[in-house]
Formats: sequence, structure tokens, C-alpha cells
Amino acid sequence: MTIYPVVMCGGSGTRLWPVSTARTPKQFVNLVSGESLFRQTIRRIAPGDDGLDLAAPIIISNARYLDLVESQMAETGVAPQAILLEPCARNTAAVAAIAAEFVSRMDPDGLVLLLPADHFIGRPDAFRKAVADAVEVARNGRIVTFGISPDRPETGFGYIKAGEPLGPSTHAVAAFREKPDRATAMAYLSDGTYSWNAGIFLFPASLMQAELSAHAPDVLEGAAAALDATASSDKIVRIDEESFSSIRSISIDYAVMERTQRAAVVGPLSCAWSDVGTWPTLGELQDGDGTSGPVLIDTKNCTIHADDGTLVAALGIEDMVIAVHDGAVLVMPKSRSQDVSLIIDALKARGRSDLF
Amino acid sequence: MTIYPVVMCGGSGTRLWPVSTARTPKQFVNLVSGESLFRQTIRRIAPGDDGLDLAAPIIISNARYLDLVESQMAETGVAPQAILLEPCARNTAAVAAIAAEFVSRMDPDGLVLLLPADHFIGRPDAFRKAVADAVEVARNGRIVTFGISPDRPETGFGYIKAGEPLGPSTHAVAAFREKPDRATAMAYLSDGTYSWNAGIFLFPASLMQAELSAHAPDVLEGAAAALDATASSDKIVRIDEESFSSIRSISIDYAVMERTQRAAVVGPLSCAWSDVGTWPTLGELQDGDGTSGPVLIDTKNCTIHADDGTLVAALGIEDMVIAVHDGAVLVMPKSRSQDVSLIIDALKARGRSDLF
Repeated sequence: MTIYPVVMCGGSGTRLWPVSTARTPKQFVNLVSGESLFRQTIRRIAPGDDGLDLAAPIIISNARYLDLVESQMAETGVAPQAILLEPCARNTAAVAAIAAEFVSRMDPDGLVLLLPADHFIGRPDAFRKAVADAVEVARNGRIVTFGISPDRPETGFGYIKAGEPLGPSTHAVAAFREKPDRATAMAYLSDGTYSWNAGIFLFPASLMQAELSAHAPDVLEGAAAALDATASSDKIVRIDEESFSSIRSISIDYAVMERTQRAAVVGPLSCAWSDVGTWPTLGELQDGDGTSGPVLIDTKNCTIHADDGTLVAALGIEDMVIAVHDGAVLVMPKSRSQDVSLIIDALKARGRSDLF
Repeated sequence: MTIYPVVMCGGSGTRLWPVSTARTPKQFVNLVSGESLFRQTIRRIAPGDDGLDLAAPIIISNARYLDLVESQMAETGVAPQAILLEPCARNTAAVAAIAAEFVSRMDPDGLVLLLPADHFIGRPDAFRKAVADAVEVARNGRIVTFGISPDRPETGFGYIKAGEPLGPSTHAVAAFREKPDRATAMAYLSDGTYSWNAGIFLFPASLMQAELSAHAPDVLEGAAAALDATASSDKIVRIDEESFSSIRSISIDYAVMERTQRAAVVGPLSCAWSDVGTWPTLGELQDGDGTSGPVLIDTKNCTIHADDGTLVAALGIEDMVIAVHDGAVLVMPKSRSQDVSLIIDALKARGRSDLF
């Protein structure tokens, strides 16, 4: 059974502003290791010598990022199977439905590997090993979600509780848990059967169609109608706006994963994963403070990023974020990293769309 | 008796880095009110209708700032009496000695108004009224220093204790006090007879010569020798390097003011004076946070400066300084404002002379 990677890169988060903007979201920026997360994702799922039967990737993005997708794909040297362009954002259930419909029309037996393009994985081999473990279970009729081994009582992620074993490193899902409070997160961490929900899925296209049909039939019908209405002459598939935009906006977790009896989890993975969601998490992935970087005097535990040649000098500060990019400077304590959108709101109110 | 203003603008402080640099020190930068402190100083001492007999200003600066002095003088529309160029920095006693020698050679009865070009005075009329008050006392054989009415227990300035009255708003100096600790500064503030030493002086050129001769004859002789060795064909007077550089480096306060029996103080002045010495003091002079400036979310009591069009966004910070200028960003708590030189040291160690 061939695995069709479907790479989701249509989102535009605000929490890494000013580096991540609606014009150039974080997945397309060279944030870590000198290469964009999108390009790292494409390389992670390229055919290798580990026996994974991986097809060329299917990219699903927002129409306004077509130029970025094409130019960055060219840089990787990988030819995509297709580039599906959403006319608007409609959350992950719509994306999963489009992916399942699109793949099953090409290959009714195909497996879909649905993955976000804005995560960092420091150990791609460990990730591919998990894909290999998940294939067998998915083939037997499971939607396999990827569980990351938690290394701290994180309150910003959903958790997956593993149930009975299904195969190597795979279990049925006993329960999905929403973002916990800190005490609960501590309990999950010591319990040992919980992993972080990374939002990566492997499933037979036909199984996702069946589960959507059972639990969110309107989303499946909307996706099918949208693809029916879409004229695709080449690799670039501009999804029909009228039908796509009428699909209900709901996450795949709510629409299917928390309702289906077919959920499985592979892991917990120790693959140096990060969602690169906020400035402090990005800071953890950066190299140590070298002499060519910022000037730091009496500072402690700061995340400092400047990608335009600006020299940042910090004196006597602790647990702070300083980010400089293209005419904008952000300064905040790490503890406010979830609130960067307040700045975007203020910029919107000023009409400074050039800055976000 | 004609007053010859001598404007000192050869210094280069580091505490307002990155805006103030050795290449363009703070007195030549548009920091407050959209006009450089140097130009504000020149305007402050221009002839007016208040009866002060002010000659054209004599500028004393470092040779490397000649271009800045000439271009900024041209912007004021004021023609200088002379531009004296020091080949190196030799502290304020040497400057006072050069000023006294230079003026007395032009006009043996001349008064010298010696003043720094890097102070802000929000109420120039109050300052000129103090000059008028000081003229009578200076003429009677006093070196008059200008005392600023203290509005806080500042530990960063020297203080002057007023003695017996000599004339309108003028007293003999009972004592000079070095930078006090906080408790002492509190006591000075409540005592009422202390004022801040602003480093501004009015004196007969001949009296300064006599007092230097009595208390620091080597400095006077060095200055006279330096002027003797200087060829000046036009307004630009390049002081002879060999003789000037051999003058002892000592402040006029130590060399003369603390030893002479002829010290007087005018004031205490309430003229909205500031030495613009650190980022927080500059912040106090800036306009309130408008909508065209930085984006401030949940911030309190911060000084934010960006003069190159950069947008600064600050979230959840308090008592901080953020300064952006020409490829450099400084972030520090206000409490570390005296330590900016540590950053200059680090830049020197890196060979980044382009940045300071």
C-alpha cells in the first residue's frame, strides 16, 4: 500500500511575529537549521532506503502561498504529486476530507500521511521508524495518530492516553485529553501512558471517508463536492471556492478522532519534536549564544532572534524574548508568548498591514 | 561687559548608545523636540531683546566633529566667532583655560559663559534670566556656577550648597558636594540650600586666568602655550596638538571651583533642565505614547526610542528601555542605564567599531 504524504502548509500563526507574518508564515521562514520547516518536512518524507513506499508529496496550502510553495519545492528538488490550493481556511477536518477524497480517487487502497509543515523534528529517522510501525496498524483499519513522548508538564498541547497494544509501538487510543491544567499535566507525565498529540495522522483514505461519513458526513460531502467542482488541468489544483467555503470549520480531532472506534496511537516518539509554536520553544531549538550573535551582558534564559543583520544588545534581563525582523522589534517576557496576537490586533487597528 | 558664550561639544558619551556614538555623539542627534541639543544650545545663547550683551558663540569641540559643527551651525543660521578644535580630550579645566585665554586675548574685560552643548533646557527664558542675574556678580569678581533646583534625590549629580547672598538669586558657594548616596541626597533635597551642579559657568576671562594661575598654573600655562603655537588664519582654530595634549587632564571643578574663594552660585534655577545623561532621563523628555509610536500592550513606565522607522512592539514589560538605531537594538531595565558602556566594551572586543 502506497503512502501519500499530504503536507498541510496553509496556516499563518501570529505567535512568532514579527518573523512569521500572514504574508510569509513560519513554515516558509528559515527559523531553525538554516532551512524552512516546510523544506525540512518535504525532505523528511522523501523516498529513502528504509522500505517506506512513499509517493511524491501532495501539498495543501492557501492559494496566496502558491508562489512560496512552488519556489521552496523547487529548492528541495522534489516534484510534488499535486498542489491543492484552498481558497480560504476551513480547519483540519476539511483538509483531512479533501486529502482522503483526493487520494482515494487516485488510489482506492492508498494510505494518507497527513502532516503539518510547521513542526520541527530533530530526528527524522525516529519519525520514519514510527511511520513504518504505523503502516501495519493503519492497513488493518485504524486512523493512527502520532504521540510524542512528553518531556515536561506542558499545558499547551492535547494528550493521548494509550490503551491496549495493537502492534509494535502502537496502541488503541483509550482517550483524547484536551489541554490540561498544570496539576493534570504533571499527573499525565508521571502516569507514563500519555503522549502529546502532534496532529500527524496515518490512515487508509477509504477509512477516513467512512469515519467522516459516520461522524461528520457534511464535511465529507462538502469536500467531495468541492473536488467535483474543481477543474484541475495540471498539478496545481485550485479548489472550488463556493463549495469549499461552505464546509463546516471543525478540527479533525473533534469531528472524527474523539468519536471514532478506529483511533490508534504510535509512539511515544522521542524524535526531538517541536511545534515551534512560540518564541521560547523556538529559542530552545537555537544554537547557544555565540560571539557572532547578540551581545549579552548579565542576561539569563532569554530567546533572542534577529535575522536582518541587526545587532541586539541585552543588558541585565531574564526570561525575555527579543525578536527583530524586517522593520519590527518585539520585546516581551517569555510568559506572555501566547499573547502576541494582541500586537497583531493593535497593528490591524492602525492599518499597518505591511507589518503582519 | 560683553558675554562670550563658549559652547563645549567635544565629548562623546556612551550611555545613550546606540543613538549616541563616538561618530555622532548625543549633542548632534535629534533626540528631543526634533532639533539637536547643540542647535538648541546655540539658539539659547543667541542675541535677544532681553538686554544680554551676547557675542557670537565660540565653539570648542574635537577636531573630528568639525563637519558636524559646521553643518549644524549653518542650520541655525548663526555665524560663530570661532571654532576651536581640540586634537584630543583633556577635560574641562583645559577647556576653561583655553576659553579664558582665547577671550582675554580678544577682549581683556570679556565675560565667558562656558556651557555644555548636550543639555536640554525646556525654559530658555528662565536660563537667560539667570545669566542676567549672574552678570553683576561675575563682574564683581566671581566665577558663577549655575545651580539647578533639585526635584528628586538624584545620586548621579554633584551638589552645590549656597552660602551668603551676593545679589539677586546669587549666593557665595558654601561647599561643593560630590555625588551623594541616597540618604544624603534626601537630606540635601529637604535642606533647601542645595542645588545640582549643571557644569555651566559665567566668569571674567581674567579672573579665571588668575584663579587657574593660583590653583592650577600648569593648566593655564599649557593652554597659553597651546594657543601661542596655534596658527589661526580664519574662524577655524586647530589647537596645537603637541602642547595641548601635554596639559594635565583634570576637571574645572577639582582644579579651581573647589579651591577658589571666588565661587558663586546663581539659582536654584527651575528651567526644565536635564543633562539627558541616560535613557530614562531622555524618556522623561519625550512626548507621551502616541498611536504613531511603539505598540505598547500591558507595559508600564518604559522608555522606547526608535528613530529609523522601526516599529517597536512591547508586551507585558515594566521599567525597561528599548532603543533602536541604525542596525542596533538595546534592551535593558532602566536600573542598568549607567552600565551601557559594558556593551561598548563587548563591541570593541568584537571589532564592531561600525556600531559605536
